[in-house]
Amino acid sequence: MTLKKTLGIAALVALLPHLGLAQEAVEAVEAAPDINPYIFTTLLFLIGGFLVFWMAAGFAMLEAGLVRSKNVTMQLTKNIALFSIAAIMYWLIGFNLMYPGDGWWIAGWMGPWFSITSLEPVGLEAAAASLDYASVGSDFFFQLMFCATTASIVSGTLAERIKLWPFLLFVVVLTGVLYPIEASWQWGGGWLSEMGFADFAGSTLVHAAGGFAALAGALILGPRIGKYAKDGRVIPIPGSNLALATLGTFILWLGWFGFNGGSQLAMGTVSDVTDVSRIFANTNMAAAAGAVTALILTQVMYKKPDLTMVLNGALAGLVSITAEPLAPSLFGALWIGAVGGVIVVITVPMLDRMKIDDVVGAIPVHLIAGIWGTLAVPFYNSEASFGTQIVGIAAIGGFVFVASLVVWSILKMTMGIRVGEEEEINGLDMAELGMEAYPEFSKG
Amino acid sequence: MTLKKTLGIAALVALLPHLGLAQEAVEAVEAAPDINPYIFTTLLFLIGGFLVFWMAAGFAMLEAGLVRSKNVTMQLTKNIALFSIAAIMYWLIGFNLMYPGDGWWIAGWMGPWFSITSLEPVGLEAAAASLDYASVGSDFFFQLMFCATTASIVSGTLAERIKLWPFLLFVVVLTGVLYPIEASWQWGGGWLSEMGFADFAGSTLVHAAGGFAALAGALILGPRIGKYAKDGRVIPIPGSNLALATLGTFILWLGWFGFNGGSQLAMGTVSDVTDVSRIFANTNMAAAAGAVTALILTQVMYKKPDLTMVLNGALAGLVSITAEPLAPSLFGALWIGAVGGVIVVITVPMLDRMKIDDVVGAIPVHLIAGIWGTLAVPFYNSEASFGTQIVGIAAIGGFVFVASLVVWSILKMTMGIRVGEEEEINGLDMAELGMEAYPEFSKG
Amino acid sequence: MTLKKTLGIAALVALLPHLGLAQEAVEAVEAAPDINPYIFTTLLFLIGGFLVFWMAAGFAMLEAGLVRSKNVTMQLTKNIALFSIAAIMYWLIGFNLMYPGDGWWIAGWMGPWFSITSLEPVGLEAAAASLDYASVGSDFFFQLMFCATTASIVSGTLAERIKLWPFLLFVVVLTGVLYPIEASWQWGGGWLSEMGFADFAGSTLVHAAGGFAALAGALILGPRIGKYAKDGRVIPIPGSNLALATLGTFILWLGWFGFNGGSQLAMGTVSDVTDVSRIFANTNMAAAAGAVTALILTQVMYKKPDLTMVLNGALAGLVSITAEPLAPSLFGALWIGAVGGVIVVITVPMLDRMKIDDVVGAIPVHLIAGIWGTLAVPFYNSEASFGTQIVGIAAIGGFVFVASLVVWSILKMTMGIRVGEEEEINGLDMAELGMEAYPEFSKG
Repeated sequence: MTLKKTLGIAALVALLPHLGLAQEAVEAVEAAPDINPYIFTTLLFLIGGFLVFWMAAGFAMLEAGLVRSKNVTMQLTKNIALFSIAAIMYWLIGFNLMYPGDGWWIAGWMGPWFSITSLEPVGLEAAAASLDYASVGSDFFFQLMFCATTASIVSGTLAERIKLWPFLLFVVVLTGVLYPIEASWQWGGGWLSEMGFADFAGSTLVHAAGGFAALAGALILGPRIGKYAKDGRVIPIPGSNLALATLGTFILWLGWFGFNGGSQLAMGTVSDVTDVSRIFANTNMAAAAGAVTALILTQVMYKKPDLTMVLNGALAGLVSITAEPLAPSLFGALWIGAVGGVIVVITVPMLDRMKIDDVVGAIPVHLIAGIWGTLAVPFYNSEASFGTQIVGIAAIGGFVFVASLVVWSILKMTMGIRVGEEEEINGLDMAELGMEAYPEFSKG
Repeated sequence: MTLKKTLGIAALVALLPHLGLAQEAVEAVEAAPDINPYIFTTLLFLIGGFLVFWMAAGFAMLEAGLVRSKNVTMQLTKNIALFSIAAIMYWLIGFNLMYPGDGWWIAGWMGPWFSITSLEPVGLEAAAASLDYASVGSDFFFQLMFCATTASIVSGTLAERIKLWPFLLFVVVLTGVLYPIEASWQWGGGWLSEMGFADFAGSTLVHAAGGFAALAGALILGPRIGKYAKDGRVIPIPGSNLALATLGTFILWLGWFGFNGGSQLAMGTVSDVTDVSRIFANTNMAAAAGAVTALILTQVMYKKPDLTMVLNGALAGLVSITAEPLAPSLFGALWIGAVGGVIVVITVPMLDRMKIDDVVGAIPVHLIAGIWGTLAVPFYNSEASFGTQIVGIAAIGGFVFVASLVVWSILKMTMGIRVGEEEEINGLDMAELGMEAYPEFSKG
Repeated sequence: MTLKKTLGIAALVALLPHLGLAQEAVEAVEAAPDINPYIFTTLLFLIGGFLVFWMAAGFAMLEAGLVRSKNVTMQLTKNIALFSIAAIMYWLIGFNLMYPGDGWWIAGWMGPWFSITSLEPVGLEAAAASLDYASVGSDFFFQLMFCATTASIVSGTLAERIKLWPFLLFVVVLTGVLYPIEASWQWGGGWLSEMGFADFAGSTLVHAAGGFAALAGALILGPRIGKYAKDGRVIPIPGSNLALATLGTFILWLGWFGFNGGSQLAMGTVSDVTDVSRIFANTNMAAAAGAVTALILTQVMYKKPDLTMVLNGALAGLVSITAEPLAPSLFGALWIGAVGGVIVVITVPMLDRMKIDDVVGAIPVHLIAGIWGTLAVPFYNSEASFGTQIVGIAAIGGFVFVASLVVWSILKMTMGIRVGEEEEINGLDMAELGMEAYPEFSKG
């Protein structure tokens, strides 16, 4: 076809002198560049974006399955509310705060940093589009989902004892200000990116950041009543619905293909789409390796495989590969993810010994495996260095942790962040919401 | 690359006089148009279609979560059956009834209106394809999902008391005849579209239509036993599984990107794919705004946030933006969706005061917010007018409501539509199906 | 645009003699082939792959819903573990064992058959890509999901009595060796494909193969305690959560669009993308027909519709159309799928009469409907013959069944495959895992 077509074009040209359109036609050619890369990359953001959106449902199901039934309605409410708030805050402040250099899509009513996101006009002409990238709308849609993910991480750790509204106010600050600032250091072309920090899809920028915010909250909030006995024993508090938790994990795994694959930020060339394929394959491998490692390790250590560890192992594998899902071989993804699985099995009890009560294991999965993944980048990406990676982790971690401590402390001092003892024992659902998740099923 | 390539083509042309292929070559060019827009738009329908398919699961989970456990098996059965029936009826009658003007894909054995859909042949040649659109198969697949969605809306309202088979017979009529007729008025190039009615993805054509069919059913069927006390009080009947209901809402939210995004009906140009991006971003914003609004409003009005209102608020936001997800700015999507959230919180108790028993809140969400979304179109789309929008709503609403009343009445008179009192109290699962959804969990 | 663009190119040509670049330019043209088909097909594999990945969640939910609550944690553990193991084994051995002819992506350290899969380098140049196909990474990702699906089928049949580790060891052999060998006979260009066997997306290669492995396991393992009374009666053991089972079915239905649609293996031409559309429409129709048939048949036979039969009817419809989802008309898909629904309703009680205890009905759905679908191919695909289809089914079935019998027997003799009687009665969750799925809900 191609040759025939070319000849056809050539033939037309032979007729050209009779047409006398040469000059105009040259201009027409120059005005008709290849639009397919723009469409492909925009499509990548749309598909990647809806997959990462789906992760919000994954967090909701995972957390609803890992809390006790008396707190399920609250956990569901927090999850759908935090996503919705993130969507609004990222539009109102976040997106432009994160990408201050790209002034053209800024409404501009409050200057370059605090301005509301606006999209391209309807029916955008090709000549007005950034044809070497993608539509602003798709980019905003995709990036918004990362901001929301950061907040989703926090809700699980603090479950079963935090009040609804202070939690949501923290989400307002996290998604409107904290995440956009630290993310702009790298993805907004800021100082970390100039320094050579490498974090492909956000092991540190999203996952460890969310984990640091959760850790700060857990320290201020304290553990659940009954979690740590006075004699130092840790009392296991089993989740109410492991089928939901497993569903949530599968949802997150699925969404992660969009999370990591979409972060290639381009799909219009052979090289880019092939790289996206590598990322899909590596992401899947790291998750599988994390799950299998946790399965074997809990069998060896405790003689009984632990499903919640397997689920968190898969998630830790995913977080671990997120900083560099492209460069490693499949074997690289395997061992990086497997270390993620080890991290979960080792650090979940460590946190308990430190009396840091993390209801769903989000700190091991997102914070510790996120740091691990970021540190592992130089093994396969020769442009990254361990030193720079440490600087990046320290900067983002320090900023998010300290800022979160401040915000949590202010919330604690002003409105209080913890429900009363009686409310906590009876469950947040009846106390704060007056609505049970499973009203017909008796409690054990 | 582009310039180099162009020069290359030019160079070939210089060789042309030696080839003597001019005339044939001209024909070859004309026979080799750009096929990429066709592939992109077909892909849009396939992705959009599977996302809207997924909404069938969303309705099933939402409704299964909002009924009592004694009726869950029945609700699940109705949902998978109604989707399957829609798939068959839309093939048998609906698609051709809805698009009577596009005669070429009509099997034709019963004339243009009542004929069975057939697809393009295997291995369709590019020359035989409608290259300015998409494959018939993908269009049929996509449109079918809208037809099924209309029926999904009905099942929730009538839950916990309607018999299985009369309900499914109604679905046969709705998906085979009623929906295709009213949808053809607009999307089949009919009189409403000629008049200038604007309903981008179906706030009225799908959602209000389904809501009117549900309302007619609710009026004929009457409320559940025990819902309205003799002294006029409304007795709350909580759903059995709010985790499922939340999952269903997230599924619907995800599917809605396909619902609204796919309704752009084109993805092969910069303009179209950018518009699809706008639609994704606006759809998400409207859902978020609806959820947050319902959250705040229930806090203010009742002092306790109500998760079921938040879920329905998100859905009402989605329904509200469906009539015009493209033209509004993100701020426009926010306030249109927020009004949807207000509608849910206000009209759910209003329906109860009118003793219209809508088990899942489908009438506020789909009918009332659907009307709102349709009325809101002219705020951002200058080609629409309030007058025409009202005519469209009245015509579709009147037709579907009256026709549904007739069908429900006939069903009631002939086979009866309501289970016996004892069956209703014991639950439809054991009475009609002999199978419990959660046989091992005791009932409260 | 096209004509204008062509004229523009022509105009450029008129300027050509002044440029003197003819020869180089010709080479540039020849070096710049159309990359869009490569991108489209790679994208098809990525989308198809994540949809088939999602089927792993579908199997997990379906099976978790159909076992008793005392075995749910185990069933979830098996499902996430088997997928993870499949991901590793298919990388370690399977992919190259299945496609021995495509040596170029073989790492080669153990010869062509037993070598570890490696992907293309990062940033693959277009000149180095197989532009008439897709990226290796996307192909591997897609094919891996089929391998994992085969293993998912086995876990349901053997639920509620098999030990975790012997089951997972079987999965190692099945996904690393058995599936790749039999699949290579057809999809690896082996003797079955040379003979003319037709199995588009794997009614036999995936579904019947998984079913044969499950049948062998069921025979060696024996039925659950209490399933078959001494007087010959079959004791129904209802599943614990039909909402989950229904969710699982919807997930599988959704994933099947990727399973069958992706198996077109190309999306870069009008013909291919139109064929993918046909496949989507036919796949949906077959599922709908299977569901409706099972609904009507259970109403007629038992006077009560049976939701689990409807779910399995939909799945049997999907399995039935999988061998040839392209060639049939929509009516063909309807009756092929409907026969699948009949098969389920008829053969589920038949298996029980033979005292073969298949907990979720995987043998009727995947094995028997898989054989049916494979036999039905010649009705619409004139290149297939009934004789060759029978040979293919017999070869694959015989190989997988006998090899599985051997593996199960070895596992039984060495480590034992069945939990003790007390463990089985008390449930595998507490006995083997020490963790309940629903610890707070009392058991009936």
